Amino acid sequence: MKKVAIVMGSKSDLPVVEKAGKVLKALNVSYEMRILSAHRTPVELHEFADGLDTNGFGVIIAAAGKAAHLAGVLASSTTLPVIGVPIKSSTLDGLDALLSTVQMPKGIPVATVAIDGSENAAILAAQILAIEDTLLREKLITMREEDAKRILKDDASL
Amino acid sequence: MKKVAIVMGSKSDLPVVEKAGKVLKALNVSYEMRILSAHRTPVELHEFADGLDTNGFGVIIAAAGKAAHLAGVLASSTTLPVIGVPIKSSTLDGLDALLSTVQMPKGIPVATVAIDGSENAAILAAQILAIEDTLLREKLITMREEDAKRILKDDASL
Amino acid sequence: MKKVAIVMGSKSDLPVVEKAGKVLKALNVSYEMRILSAHRTPVELHEFADGLDTNGFGVIIAAAGKAAHLAGVLASSTTLPVIGVPIKSSTLDGLDALLSTVQMPKGIPVATVAIDGSENAAILAAQILAIEDTLLREKLITMREEDAKRILKDDASL
Amino acid sequence: MKKVAIVMGSKSDLPVVEKAGKVLKALNVSYEMRILSAHRTPVELHEFADGLDTNGFGVIIAAAGKAAHLAGVLASSTTLPVIGVPIKSSTLDGLDALLSTVQMPKGIPVATVAIDGSENAAILAAQILAIEDTLLREKLITMREEDAKRILKDDASL
Amino acid sequence: MKKVAIVMGSKSDLPVVEKAGKVLKALNVSYEMRILSAHRTPVELHEFADGLDTNGFGVIIAAAGKAAHLAGVLASSTTLPVIGVPIKSSTLDGLDALLSTVQMPKGIPVATVAIDGSENAAILAAQILAIEDTLLREKLITMREEDAKRILKDDASL
Amino acid sequence: MKKVAIVMGSKSDLPVVEKAGKVLKALNVSYEMRILSAHRTPVELHEFADGLDTNGFGVIIAAAGKAAHLAGVLASSTTLPVIGVPIKSSTLDGLDALLSTVQMPKGIPVATVAIDGSENAAILAAQILAIEDTLLREKLITMREEDAKRILKDDASL
Amino acid sequence: MKKVAIVMGSKSDLPVVEKAGKVLKALNVSYEMRILSAHRTPVELHEFADGLDTNGFGVIIAAAGKAAHLAGVLASSTTLPVIGVPIKSSTLDGLDALLSTVQMPKGIPVATVAIDGSENAAILAAQILAIEDTLLREKLITMREEDAKRILKDDASL
Amino acid sequence: MKKVAIVMGSKSDLPVVEKAGKVLKALNVSYEMRILSAHRTPVELHEFADGLDTNGFGVIIAAAGKAAHLAGVLASSTTLPVIGVPIKSSTLDGLDALLSTVQMPKGIPVATVAIDGSENAAILAAQILAIEDTLLREKLITMREEDAKRILKDDASL
Repeated sequence: MKKVAIVMGSKSDLPVVEKAGKVLKALNVSYEMRILSAHRTPVELHEFADGLDTNGFGVIIAAAGKAAHLAGVLASSTTLPVIGVPIKSSTLDGLDALLSTVQMPKGIPVATVAIDGSENAAILAAQILAIEDTLLREKLITMREEDAKRILKDDASL
Repeated sequence: MKKVAIVMGSKSDLPVVEKAGKVLKALNVSYEMRILSAHRTPVELHEFADGLDTNGFGVIIAAAGKAAHLAGVLASSTTLPVIGVPIKSSTLDGLDALLSTVQMPKGIPVATVAIDGSENAAILAAQILAIEDTLLREKLITMREEDAKRILKDDASL
Repeated sequence: MKKVAIVMGSKSDLPVVEKAGKVLKALNVSYEMRILSAHRTPVELHEFADGLDTNGFGVIIAAAGKAAHLAGVLASSTTLPVIGVPIKSSTLDGLDALLSTVQMPKGIPVATVAIDGSENAAILAAQILAIEDTLLREKLITMREEDAKRILKDDASL
Repeated sequence: MKKVAIVMGSKSDLPVVEKAGKVLKALNVSYEMRILSAHRTPVELHEFADGLDTNGFGVIIAAAGKAAHLAGVLASSTTLPVIGVPIKSSTLDGLDALLSTVQMPKGIPVATVAIDGSENAAILAAQILAIEDTLLREKLITMREEDAKRILKDDASL
Repeated sequence: MKKVAIVMGSKSDLPVVEKAGKVLKALNVSYEMRILSAHRTPVELHEFADGLDTNGFGVIIAAAGKAAHLAGVLASSTTLPVIGVPIKSSTLDGLDALLSTVQMPKGIPVATVAIDGSENAAILAAQILAIEDTLLREKLITMREEDAKRILKDDASL
Repeated sequence: MKKVAIVMGSKSDLPVVEKAGKVLKALNVSYEMRILSAHRTPVELHEFADGLDTNGFGVIIAAAGKAAHLAGVLASSTTLPVIGVPIKSSTLDGLDALLSTVQMPKGIPVATVAIDGSENAAILAAQILAIEDTLLREKLITMREEDAKRILKDDASL
Repeated sequence: MKKVAIVMGSKSDLPVVEKAGKVLKALNVSYEMRILSAHRTPVELHEFADGLDTNGFGVIIAAAGKAAHLAGVLASSTTLPVIGVPIKSSTLDGLDALLSTVQMPKGIPVATVAIDGSENAAILAAQILAIEDTLLREKLITMREEDAKRILKDDASL
Repeated sequence: MKKVAIVMGSKSDLPVVEKAGKVLKALNVSYEMRILSAHRTPVELHEFADGLDTNGFGVIIAAAGKAAHLAGVLASSTTLPVIGVPIKSSTLDGLDALLSTVQMPKGIPVATVAIDGSENAAILAAQILAIEDTLLREKLITMREEDAKRILKDDASL
């Protein structure tokens, strides 16, 4: 199975982003986590992007705040699907990161999830890899069922 | 190859959404286009969602405006990846549709693209299907190269 | 008298939503409180919606945050009036929930109150049930008078 | 059956607001339409509000733009349910009217619908009156079914 | 000299609003402070508005949050200048109160100051009363000079 | 009676701003209209500000768009009341001009009216001058009554 | 004298961006205009960025719309000052481009001007080059004086 | 080498603004820091602006919050490049300061950086001065390399 690359623009994004790793772990999906900045380490980022295919990656998750260009730069360097996680890291509640991530020009899409939504980014990555992987799909269905059970238990406890 | 489902909430969305079909056609990706509303035809929408697997769909594109729940409702009915296209159809420039599509709760991601970004939704769908399909991937690369050539031609014409 | 259904999308909404219950209690209006998610327990939610009539409900209050679809999904499943309470549960101050709740398409209204405005949702539910119920209406008038007295007492204390 | 009062703040709101009248007519719900301003004809507005009960009204629809106080002023003068329609009549796309209508303080709810959503205001008014009126409820269900048929016809025509 | 009326919609606004009183005291301008709500004590508010002239008021300061109608209601009841102070009292950072206060319809202006800007409301009230009052004007000039001195002292301390 | 100064930042603001002049004319209030820019003719603007008193002005109306500093600069040069009219002249619907005008720091208030609200600026200026001028006040009351009559006539015509 | 590079992300930006060229021409500042996309021609963009020094450029103007990454990508490739012009090219009035351009992370500034403000970008570029160039500075002063004269002529024509 | 002037509107901005000084110190760029207000000490501000040239300044950094006019006023008083730092000092997350700083009219640009982005303002000032100063440029490159090393070290530590 292809791996998932999780890239964040700064170490300060780690507390939000590492939740994506936990979800992938729970789903038994291999991933690598990297700190690489579109603006401050552009050379290393492009090297990383160029090696995505040969290194067995299938989906990329990119998390960044403020004028969040990380997902867009990665998306312009590969035709693998890139999932963008806008991070709330400025005074603007993450709206700047959301618009910088989702409003991509024609030709270079970024699959954007909610602000600070790293768990959903991981689930989306797994859903993409699960299209042709029945086992992973079953794990996703189980995860949803557990999620539902938790809500129904909360409901019953009222 | 899996097919792409393109669903829109209203016929008035067709001028924006049919561009997704054109892109998929150009990439030789099979698709079906439907008009189904999360709020006005919920029964038919759920029937459609329940048949996605058996009918050979791999990715869903859902386009809707205002309080755009279509992509979220589909995402809650399948573990296939759902791409959301927020449509500008109210006075609010599409911001309502963007937030209603992208700010999904934990567990049910929607891969959101730009407001009115139906072409990018189609490209993203193709990128997802191309992970394991070298031929489609080459078509995506060719499409990008042609896009780049057009820009460089524009650049040369200055 | 018809009952009021209070539905919330997640247990984390309870501290805000339970205030609706207190108001209804004070007005002697029967209600049932449920935790059901439009996205994570869609089947249970639809079952609940289908039974609203036979179970004697007259008005529904639905509270949810982020891409808040709960009120809209309920409104599409019943012709009983649905009151939507947008909950502040993301980084965006509740604006996402407000727009996802209020900007409903033609045909399926949601009666939206202020962000985190669960008390007003309860009062609105009571006002609806009071149209043909003089006793309840008197209680609402008394509640308002007490509210006014409190303000006039504050005014006098300056 | 109780009547619906439709009040707008200015004649310029009529093209949007008269759609509410058409919907009520189609549902055979009696209504009266008035132009009364919270700021420019406050005396007449309060007179109107004071007579709502004795004149047989059950629900009020109030439509206004900009710093839209009309619905709030009416809501503070009656315990009948007041439905607010924010009208886009400034440069701000109706966001000013939406916030001025929906963000009511504790105690005085306004049941707010979408910006320029006068048809939904009418449907909501009918839903409220239909709680105890089986015939009206059936008409609402029929209206929804026709709405659904139109969408399914659009869907079939693709 | 005419007095200034300071009205707030709720006792919870007092910590912000009482700063207006302090400024007026420092400028030796008479004022009265009241808690009166546009929505919850409309009768008392109108009584107060009707007596403004005979009670010797020249300027009104009205402070309210959320769907802040207080200043607008007062402005519609008098031709004395009404100064509006939008109060941050909801999750929306005061933007709702700002738009509800400033976006008044043609004919009924509200002189709006910054969110939570009660001190500036007091200064503006004094500026209005000072047009024909040389002594008050001199006090305002002195206050500004002291303000400037404080800044220049801060500057010198760097 | 004191005169009103109407200043705008650019000739392109004239179509909106000249409505202020018409209102003042109708109320028989003397005014002078000027085009002066805070950024492009700062010297002339300060000369103008310095002469306000000796030239018999009592109130200043300042209209400007985008990063609208005109009202603030005038307010910092005089203790006469300055009314700010935010003009919609950028792509941002006037929100930039509104915030640049209303969010003044402590000590220097600007009495802000609605975006493009030049008529209300004129009425507010007249209300300020009318505090001690019974005749002008009566004209303002008459203007309101005519406004009300027009609405009641519209109401009667329904 | 160093040259100015004007880069835009798409030919559709040309009508706005070419005004920058006209201003530089009027000031006798050499410039080159290019169409290069951060996302669609990243290789050519980086080649261009790498040659900026050896090709005699001193300042870069970068104009782009939507998730505008162009200025940021250029700024990360050079220590020459980069001026960003957010272009209104989506439904969102240019707010997406503004935030994507201005909210750069620590270390990589972009000197952002107003939405569609290409003329100001040119003036800013000239101001930067004029720090050590008295002749250019005089031209800038003359340009301002002409600007001021035009306003004073408009003022005189009232 | 020319000096950098750092001006802030209020002592309360110092904790954010003094970071600009630290960056300039690290780069060995001379600077002077001042507290001067566009609205409260306009005379002293204009004196300061008039002396910029003779006092050897090459670039100005101006930081202010709310209706932030400081950068604009300075930019209208000099043809030296003015860098604006919008400060978050109101309830509105700095959006008011951002728009008041960046949306300058044609003719008077302000080079705006991110909200609270005083470090980037300093780097931008140094980049401007470094155009003709190879030594400073090398320091900027070294600073970037150290920034990159820190990120790569963070990356390695995962």
